[in-house]
Amino acid sequence: MKLNDLQTTTRWTLAGRAGKMNPSVIREILKVTERPGIISFAGGLPSPKTFPVSEFRFACEKVLRDDGPAALQYAASEGYGPLREMVAAMLPWNVDPARVLITTGSQQGLDLVAKVLIDTGSRILVETPTYLGALQAFTPMEPKVVSVASDAEGVDVDDLAAKAAATATSGAARFLYVLPNFQNPTGRTMTEARRAALSRRAAEIGLPLVEDNPYGDLWFDAPPPAPLTARDPEGCIYLGSFSKVLAPGLRLGFIVAPKAVHPKLLQAKQAADLHSPGFNQRMVAEVMKDGFLDRHVPTIRALYKSQRDAMLVALKREMQGLDVQWNTPDGGMFLWVRLPQGMTAIELLPKAVEKGVAFVPGAPFYAGEADPRCLRLSFVTATVEQIDTGIGALAAAIRAMGSQG
Amino acid sequence: MKLNDLQTTTRWTLAGRAGKMNPSVIREILKVTERPGIISFAGGLPSPKTFPVSEFRFACEKVLRDDGPAALQYAASEGYGPLREMVAAMLPWNVDPARVLITTGSQQGLDLVAKVLIDTGSRILVETPTYLGALQAFTPMEPKVVSVASDAEGVDVDDLAAKAAATATSGAARFLYVLPNFQNPTGRTMTEARRAALSRRAAEIGLPLVEDNPYGDLWFDAPPPAPLTARDPEGCIYLGSFSKVLAPGLRLGFIVAPKAVHPKLLQAKQAADLHSPGFNQRMVAEVMKDGFLDRHVPTIRALYKSQRDAMLVALKREMQGLDVQWNTPDGGMFLWVRLPQGMTAIELLPKAVEKGVAFVPGAPFYAGEADPRCLRLSFVTATVEQIDTGIGALAAAIRAMGSQG
Repeated sequence: MKLNDLQTTTRWTLAGRAGKMNPSVIREILKVTERPGIISFAGGLPSPKTFPVSEFRFACEKVLRDDGPAALQYAASEGYGPLREMVAAMLPWNVDPARVLITTGSQQGLDLVAKVLIDTGSRILVETPTYLGALQAFTPMEPKVVSVASDAEGVDVDDLAAKAAATATSGAARFLYVLPNFQNPTGRTMTEARRAALSRRAAEIGLPLVEDNPYGDLWFDAPPPAPLTARDPEGCIYLGSFSKVLAPGLRLGFIVAPKAVHPKLLQAKQAADLHSPGFNQRMVAEVMKDGFLDRHVPTIRALYKSQRDAMLVALKREMQGLDVQWNTPDGGMFLWVRLPQGMTAIELLPKAVEKGVAFVPGAPFYAGEADPRCLRLSFVTATVEQIDTGIGALAAAIRAMGSQG
Repeated sequence: MKLNDLQTTTRWTLAGRAGKMNPSVIREILKVTERPGIISFAGGLPSPKTFPVSEFRFACEKVLRDDGPAALQYAASEGYGPLREMVAAMLPWNVDPARVLITTGSQQGLDLVAKVLIDTGSRILVETPTYLGALQAFTPMEPKVVSVASDAEGVDVDDLAAKAAATATSGAARFLYVLPNFQNPTGRTMTEARRAALSRRAAEIGLPLVEDNPYGDLWFDAPPPAPLTARDPEGCIYLGSFSKVLAPGLRLGFIVAPKAVHPKLLQAKQAADLHSPGFNQRMVAEVMKDGFLDRHVPTIRALYKSQRDAMLVALKREMQGLDVQWNTPDGGMFLWVRLPQGMTAIELLPKAVEKGVAFVPGAPFYAGEADPRCLRLSFVTATVEQIDTGIGALAAAIRAMGSQG
């Protein structure tokens, strides 16, 4: 190494928070699974069959023809007015469009929430397990993340109250981050009874809720219970996304926030990227007008339900005789699997990839102690035929690993 | 106020940094100037005449027809490969495409730099005055911002060295943020001699540079000197933008960063919004291929030069007999004006708006003590006729204010 190299590589002092950032485990896994021939249940990628490409073609052409210069100019940080009104109108409680902030995907919503609500060392609460992307968004603000006990119906309300309370060394928790519908990673849905209990208890103890709802529209047989935010709009921040009902590649989501927080989220948004692309916002508004989602989303539901069903059938057939458990999600994109005792998902992964199938181990989704036997399967990216083959390969890998151990 | 209101408004505890965020002064001014009939020199909006709308129409159609599902799917955080290669190829030094990170406008580049390099209380250095948007992006990470003495050629290198050094109470400055070409707000350009001196001194004292170059292509008679990053790529982070050469509404920019920083910027990017819109990136790559910018950018230069000239002519004519000074920018979008002694830009603004013209006072652009007599005029948004009328109105407001005082 030349002296000059040494000087230049040591010139940069990174912020403390940079040491806490890590490459996404999922990202690294996805690289492996991009090898040809691998059937991937790993990514959280919506099925491209559901992207309304021809509607977007018409919308692009119309926006650029009728409104090109405005669509391509700098714009307000709040977002495109008509789109904010559509968002307010489609939510199942009384939402003032002035409280809607359009974000660059709902991932940015999480980044803004972190900036505005988290001080270094302040406690925030999450489900067990929780969405990995949220942990990544919160980490740079250096919170102490506390995992709240959770079961198939959602968070344990008593454990929540205990962990929310101020302690000798720190103030009350800043918020609970919760994804009640078809959760990523588990696919589970918070029941009506649990929502009611959580909402009541949070209000009693003064705990703010950050409710993330990217999958809520993707229900199979019946809509999920009303959002937590609908029960207490001033006590909740609500995050939504167009990624799963239209397309992720446009990077558009939204935040609905109470009066106490909205102006600061807006200022943070302005500092973060000035505004989300105005062109994309107009495209989405153009596609959505005249009730397009009412016709389009049922087709996504039907497709994903058929893929979930195919995965359930394949699991039942292929996992016979193996002590493997899984749940039956009522919507969304993911199913949660628990391996036999003594087996870990991290160890299984390379064996499964050898057999031609990939998944995401559950461990990275835990803020606290992980259950190493759990893994996440996406049923929306692979075809029904690939699901059949892939679950067979997964069972073969489990069987082979069990006979070794 | 009902008890319930009180409870809900006090439930939210904001992060300390949220108290330091403020609504943009410029934003508030722009609201005033949106009144019909006001000629605005306030906004930093590129002329919509320069947006290649028909090229975008063709590009949208082609991308959605040939590559729709991929363009609309989730994508890599680094950005679209072919666009990263185009960025590397168009920069005037040897850039590895692997070091290019596509961002959601260069504003996001500033946000990521702040996250990765600023700890609470760490010192960062800026020019006097400096770009307000950068101050807004850095503020949430709570740095101590130190203003380095600057003249018409750029930062004072001796003052820089003094202020960069570690002090009894803090470590060495983390970086100097510098906008060398046609600076926002002053329009000034750092000379070759100053760049050489700055680059040498920064390397000697081990001070990293963050070089922002959104306007560099918009030169009028001759290109500006080579970027600071070209002289020392491992000692500099370089920020670029497509907003001024194509269109801001797509929100696309890029960062080129040294090996010591790139991986952390990438992780911060992933946490911030997963990736910039893949659809927009493909549109821009499609428009840019076959050397479109080589044909298009000269037309922007010619237009902006004619508008700068119109403003210079109007200033010379209208400001006769008033002790008003201004500079002659060699490119970009802005011109810097200094009012007569005893007059402040903040006080002048409402009088100017009464006469039908708006500008941005200079004070918000100073991290340290402001020169209250300075103001920024954009010459790119208004037409030549509006520039004539608007500068006349501005002179009338100055004259009226002078005779009052």
